[in-house]
Amino acid sequence: KQIVLLPGDGIGSEVIQSAKQVLDAITERFNHTFTYHTHDIGGVAIDQHGTPLPQDTVRACEQADAVLLGAVGGPKWDQNPSHLRPEKGLLGIRKSLGLFANLRPIKGFPQLLHSSPLKHEVVDGSDLLIVRELTGGLYFGKPSERSHDGNSVVDTLAYERSEIERIVDNAFKSAQLRRKHLTSVDKANVLESSKLWREVVEEKKADYPDVTVEHQLVDAAAMKLITAPTDFDVIVTENMFGDILSDEASVLTGSLGMLPSASLRDDGVGLYEPVHGSAPDIAGKGVANPLAMILSTAMMLRHSFHLEKEANIVEEAVQQVLQDGYHTGDLDVKNGQLVGTKEMTRRVLEHVT
Amino acid sequence: KQIVLLPGDGIGSEVIQSAKQVLDAITERFNHTFTYHTHDIGGVAIDQHGTPLPQDTVRACEQADAVLLGAVGGPKWDQNPSHLRPEKGLLGIRKSLGLFANLRPIKGFPQLLHSSPLKHEVVDGSDLLIVRELTGGLYFGKPSERSHDGNSVVDTLAYERSEIERIVDNAFKSAQLRRKHLTSVDKANVLESSKLWREVVEEKKADYPDVTVEHQLVDAAAMKLITAPTDFDVIVTENMFGDILSDEASVLTGSLGMLPSASLRDDGVGLYEPVHGSAPDIAGKGVANPLAMILSTAMMLRHSFHLEKEANIVEEAVQQVLQDGYHTGDLDVKNGQLVGTKEMTRRVLEHVT
Ligand SMILES: CC(C)[C@H](C(=O)O)[C@@H](O)C(=O)O
Ligand SMILES: CC(C)[C@H](C(=O)O)[C@@H](O)C(=O)O
Repeated sequence: KQIVLLPGDGIGSEVIQSAKQVLDAITERFNHTFTYHTHDIGGVAIDQHGTPLPQDTVRACEQADAVLLGAVGGPKWDQNPSHLRPEKGLLGIRKSLGLFANLRPIKGFPQLLHSSPLKHEVVDGSDLLIVRELTGGLYFGKPSERSHDGNSVVDTLAYERSEIERIVDNAFKSAQLRRKHLTSVDKANVLESSKLWREVVEEKKADYPDVTVEHQLVDAAAMKLITAPTDFDVIVTENMFGDILSDEASVLTGSLGMLPSASLRDDGVGLYEPVHGSAPDIAGKGVANPLAMILSTAMMLRHSFHLEKEANIVEEAVQQVLQDGYHTGDLDVKNGQLVGTKEMTRRVLEHVT
Repeated sequence: KQIVLLPGDGIGSEVIQSAKQVLDAITERFNHTFTYHTHDIGGVAIDQHGTPLPQDTVRACEQADAVLLGAVGGPKWDQNPSHLRPEKGLLGIRKSLGLFANLRPIKGFPQLLHSSPLKHEVVDGSDLLIVRELTGGLYFGKPSERSHDGNSVVDTLAYERSEIERIVDNAFKSAQLRRKHLTSVDKANVLESSKLWREVVEEKKADYPDVTVEHQLVDAAAMKLITAPTDFDVIVTENMFGDILSDEASVLTGSLGMLPSASLRDDGVGLYEPVHGSAPDIAGKGVANPLAMILSTAMMLRHSFHLEKEANIVEEAVQQVLQDGYHTGDLDVKNGQLVGTKEMTRRVLEHVT
């Protein structure tokens, strides 16, 4: 298996390092052979190669079975013109690899639930998966430009039926592996694209008779995520809606620093990254929380390599260290022991080897 | 002053009736003369006239100084083709009157804060105003259509610079009347329209030197509304973003049934409606909460008629009845007294006359 490592910016290289150590432990224990190639993306790529997404990086990722990405971005590049911004590297690699399905599982950890902004009785038991369409919709539709006189501007939300079908299929399948309830989120009372989206979901229902389906307007969903997060199992939605709702959902359980994500296409190739950002303020200090990156690695083992057992071992190891009270500075654990990136990784490794 | 009443569907006519009584009390006390014209919109208009927005209604609104709207929508019309849906009436009247500025104040009531899904220490003290652009953006851009073969679909997010300028001006002015902090929400790392939006905000800053300005990405804003709602004063944003964020914000303080809204243009003409919907399940039972409609009426007195004193009296009357423990079934007030629409209105009137 070929794995491309894209450390990126800020704490990216520190957490990628942790992920690599966990993978080394897994390969040793289970006798797998993974080959690693490290490439630049984001701000470091701008500094080194004058572009956030060098051709070299794209080529390497195209040949890989999976990509692990740390984080991109930082104040250093915030004033850059838009084609020289770190995020363009991320958007570019998702698009060039055709990673249309962004999976964001959000589940509370009992040790962290007390730092949720929500009341315990509201958030307790919430366990949801947001399936966000990632290569179409408002992010990539053309035209997306300003007029010559600079006085008008346009962006485009466009979809082919086939693009909606494949993400909806993906979400139904994800629901089948979980609690079998799918909430499709759209704005069908206003947008034409949402009407097609809703039609496709209705058509696909017949193929997944074991899954119950509900349609929700995006404004209602934004409310329900807060008032009744436990009502959700799998949510499927357009790219921009998914960006907003998944970030909204990410703060519900008080464990933003713990959330992994996967961006997939149908042949199993995927890019895995933590939901948290590059945290430039703590970069290089050895205090970054590696757990979201490690959990992203578990998702890679599961989704790209079909190594379910190995994925479970990694996820259980993370749960175990939290249960043992170890935590990094971003996590508020009562009576816990504060550790740095290396020590936290070592604790995870103890349960993996 | 000419006021058009659009009761609409569900509980709309009950709460409009309450608003009218409150206005009658105000006109009597202060010797104003308001003239009322009642017209159909939404589902009732579909049933009566075959369209959710009859020409008659539009004409009457065009001649009015202000419009009070109850609510539109209900299961009866949910399966209708899109041009025969109640919401089209609402979207249509906003657009034909050119009501580009949607103001949604969200403030907790001490008596209701305990029913917030958020922890008390997170939500306590939050008091924010969302200024949503209402006649442009993703809601109204063309093309918005399906291809002939039915296999592709497009919606358009379009803005003229002048459309952004006027809503940003409106938001800056709103901020000047409040705590003088403006958060402009966009997705400037992805959308061209957001880049122009951000530029306009930067240009306008100089005209309002007393207001501090912050830019926030829409995904970050969706998080911050939950984790730190008290950080916000005024938020200004695009139509679709505003729809999502204002509904998200509406559940924070546990008082969804209490939230008013105003949709304005620059000459002061405005449409005022409660944020809650038509509540078909309780329609006609005399139990609807009229307070959001009454508070919308206070906004009318302030924004369209510049009757600040009268507006304050109405708002204080609402606060007083809550303080006295009266509440409708949608509000959870400890040791309070449950009352119906009429009794609640009567209690408000006691403090207005
Ligand atoms: C960095 C940004 C372009 C990106 C997005 O909007 O997709 C991020 O917010 C995310 O959700 O992964
Ligand atoms: C009914 C619907 C079209 C409307 C909107 O999306 O604007 C509503 O959600 C609102 O926010 O007033």
